[in-house]
Amino acid sequence: MPVRLDEIVARFGGSVVGDGSVAITGLATLESAGQRQLSFLANPKYHAQLAATKAAAVILAPEMAGGCPVAAIVTPQPYLYFARVSQWLNAPPRPEPGIHATAVVAAEVPASACIGPHAWIGQGARIGEDVVVGANCSIGAGAEIGAGSWLYPNVSVYPGCRIGQRAIVHSGAVIGADGFGFALDAERAWVKIAQTGRVLIGDDVEIGAGTAIDRGALDDTVIEDGVKLDNQIQVGHNVRIGAHTALAGCVGIAGSAVIGRRCTVGGGAIILGHLSIADDVHVSAGTLVAKSIGRAGSYTGTVPFMAHEDWLKNFARLRHLDAMADKIRALEARLAALEQGKNES
Amino acid sequence: MPVRLDEIVARFGGSVVGDGSVAITGLATLESAGQRQLSFLANPKYHAQLAATKAAAVILAPEMAGGCPVAAIVTPQPYLYFARVSQWLNAPPRPEPGIHATAVVAAEVPASACIGPHAWIGQGARIGEDVVVGANCSIGAGAEIGAGSWLYPNVSVYPGCRIGQRAIVHSGAVIGADGFGFALDAERAWVKIAQTGRVLIGDDVEIGAGTAIDRGALDDTVIEDGVKLDNQIQVGHNVRIGAHTALAGCVGIAGSAVIGRRCTVGGGAIILGHLSIADDVHVSAGTLVAKSIGRAGSYTGTVPFMAHEDWLKNFARLRHLDAMADKIRALEARLAALEQGKNES
Amino acid sequence: MPVRLDEIVARFGGSVVGDGSVAITGLATLESAGQRQLSFLANPKYHAQLAATKAAAVILAPEMAGGCPVAAIVTPQPYLYFARVSQWLNAPPRPEPGIHATAVVAAEVPASACIGPHAWIGQGARIGEDVVVGANCSIGAGAEIGAGSWLYPNVSVYPGCRIGQRAIVHSGAVIGADGFGFALDAERAWVKIAQTGRVLIGDDVEIGAGTAIDRGALDDTVIEDGVKLDNQIQVGHNVRIGAHTALAGCVGIAGSAVIGRRCTVGGGAIILGHLSIADDVHVSAGTLVAKSIGRAGSYTGTVPFMAHEDWLKNFARLRHLDAMADKIRALEARLAALEQGKNES
Repeated sequence: MPVRLDEIVARFGGSVVGDGSVAITGLATLESAGQRQLSFLANPKYHAQLAATKAAAVILAPEMAGGCPVAAIVTPQPYLYFARVSQWLNAPPRPEPGIHATAVVAAEVPASACIGPHAWIGQGARIGEDVVVGANCSIGAGAEIGAGSWLYPNVSVYPGCRIGQRAIVHSGAVIGADGFGFALDAERAWVKIAQTGRVLIGDDVEIGAGTAIDRGALDDTVIEDGVKLDNQIQVGHNVRIGAHTALAGCVGIAGSAVIGRRCTVGGGAIILGHLSIADDVHVSAGTLVAKSIGRAGSYTGTVPFMAHEDWLKNFARLRHLDAMADKIRALEARLAALEQGKNES
Repeated sequence: MPVRLDEIVARFGGSVVGDGSVAITGLATLESAGQRQLSFLANPKYHAQLAATKAAAVILAPEMAGGCPVAAIVTPQPYLYFARVSQWLNAPPRPEPGIHATAVVAAEVPASACIGPHAWIGQGARIGEDVVVGANCSIGAGAEIGAGSWLYPNVSVYPGCRIGQRAIVHSGAVIGADGFGFALDAERAWVKIAQTGRVLIGDDVEIGAGTAIDRGALDDTVIEDGVKLDNQIQVGHNVRIGAHTALAGCVGIAGSAVIGRRCTVGGGAIILGHLSIADDVHVSAGTLVAKSIGRAGSYTGTVPFMAHEDWLKNFARLRHLDAMADKIRALEARLAALEQGKNES
Repeated sequence: MPVRLDEIVARFGGSVVGDGSVAITGLATLESAGQRQLSFLANPKYHAQLAATKAAAVILAPEMAGGCPVAAIVTPQPYLYFARVSQWLNAPPRPEPGIHATAVVAAEVPASACIGPHAWIGQGARIGEDVVVGANCSIGAGAEIGAGSWLYPNVSVYPGCRIGQRAIVHSGAVIGADGFGFALDAERAWVKIAQTGRVLIGDDVEIGAGTAIDRGALDDTVIEDGVKLDNQIQVGHNVRIGAHTALAGCVGIAGSAVIGRRCTVGGGAIILGHLSIADDVHVSAGTLVAKSIGRAGSYTGTVPFMAHEDWLKNFARLRHLDAMADKIRALEARLAALEQGKNES
């Protein structure tokens, strides 16, 4: 159903430049948008595409409005504006409330919730209003899923874990498996330490496909409000992730690490255990964080890639870096001796 | 059931050296093959095992045929030949066609397809001829699975995604979860951007266990024909992977990366977003690709490992590499001054 | 139900210092323990917390017993002792034996086993005594699960694979998917090699959430007794992992690697294929192991992280390491010439 620009502005703020009666039916990029679509210009590097866009209208910042060949919604934060419009126009179709005939449910479920085919919900679990539990999900005894949360198919929640309100949990995610804790016995075999803590997840958290968050050993693993976890992330036992921190795909966080608020961690980064990271820290993709970070800022520890034959020559030197430093020191001493001799002569 | 060498050659080409009536019942390595098994010699480094093999016969290249103590199938590409024979001899037992009584199917399914126990298939999904959907799979509304494709148990396909013909999708794979897209609001909380694109997967694609391919934000995520993805891979939104490219386990590809055709990416490599990689590029295992690669070739960016105590000495130097370069420059200047003085004296 | 210290010592050894009639109901850290809880002091760095603990009693080593303000259990290995007590006090509640009405079971199952809702067990599978198969698990035809093993919900075991006794397998784990084996044809398309080996897993193995272990190509993939695998690990085809080796989260092991006994591998490390690692090797987190390791010891290959602006300066030098080495050599030659001249004058 088409929506007029002036309706959008009435709801989300900003102002229309051009014809407010222009109607749009969806969103698209500047490059691919057609005549019924609304686009946006957030990153200045796409500015060149503005002149040629075939969009019905464009969301953009005041300083970009000049060159816009079509109608525009002007706002200081076009990307945020676009995010809000995108949610509004594209709310995923909510399945019908009710418990599917094939679901096995040992807990009380509000009438507004939707429990999918072959889902299993253990005894004493607490399911909030408007919760969606997808097909083949498994919710352990005593677990808690807050109001408005949506679990896609094949999610596993272990007993006693708690997910807050409005969570989105994608397929294959596992919440509350045992942390990795063992002691060595006299024969050097591993003896398991019971993992008796829980996973406590705040409100407005998103958890990506295949991401695993382990339960605590004694105390709990804690994910604070507004945290966003991408796919294939591993969160060890007793980790705490501060509010509004976002982790990209394939990040691994070892046990008992404490990560601050509003941090970002790039894809594939590894954060070792028993360390702490301050608020507002940004860790680059592929970085290994092996000690605590006490101050806000950006941190990186990766190597440049190069053509394989160049790499062979260059990186072999890494084995001899210490020797190189010694050679430089020796050169400095010899040179100083020569210079000394020259001054004296 | 035994197969004669001359039957194999009649089907797959090549020529028999020795007794074509030799019959084999299966395949094995040179080292472990017994008297009823066919082996192969593809990698010259295993040549030494040829003389001692107990195999009934060996697939090998013409230049290796001389030293073969048993019958041989001679072909210019023994490994490829072996692959074809292995598929022919070891077609996995196809489950009976039909919809299991416990499956929940809201779509039309051809009589030749097999839908396993507790599978769920949403409204309007399109299932091709001879498709196998394993136990506990979840196929979202409007998704499409091409003819001859095989989904192992516990696969999740989100609504609207499309998988081509003859795909193999392993357990735990997740196709079409939301891409990781958020905008920051004024309070520095993340506002979700609706992910409205699809995942479009070509023909003859294999997808490993636990691999996740996110749906596009606005446009689609595209996996072209013949792509092979190993286990635990993460493919971000709006990525495009060119035909016949193969990615090893644990690779992560960030959003909007475009990867060429016939590329290979080694295990654990990370490819950042919004960059492009040419056709026929080979990225080594563990490499972080942080900018575009415009030319075919092999690229590497990893560090050598060493005994931990050597590493402590060497790699501490990395923190002072810039200072080392400065010292070298200073030495060069001082030395030039000395040399100059000597020439003048 | 409370347990007295002297009961614990009667069962697990060690000796009580203080009042053996003190009763505890659970375990907690030194910092968080309350008056009914037993704590432990294993790591000397937490010694400072001992004086202030509110625990009912503390497990500790003889040399620490002096400063303990409450009752103590004294043992030479407090962490191991704590592990054993933790298991004893916290045995997870075993579900009722029996096959859930919604499970689809084509194999014989002993009366002591528990098969959860919507589980599927294929033909000829062998399920041991006291096995627990969680909700939505899929066990392929002919697979074998040893006595006392526990599979959490949503585990997939492929046909013919074997898991030993007392295994713990967490949600999302995939045992026995096809290894990643292909040959290139003349058009540079990949031709699949049938993966006909199995996965053979010994006794007392734990497998983390989302971990995937591929079946062998021709021979089997083997996980020996007592191996502990954390979450999100990828084990390629034909890998062998020696007894009592422990792998942390996100480790990737490429095909045909052979890893010794009692090894440890840190999080996110990548081990390439067709190499071997001796017994008692410790690989640091984030390390890429690109060649065999023949001797016990600790091995590392990672780079330090630093503030992003420092990294920009330092790591750019890595591209010129070979040139730096050349410059040092040139300086040495020039300096030697100068020194030579001076000696001659």
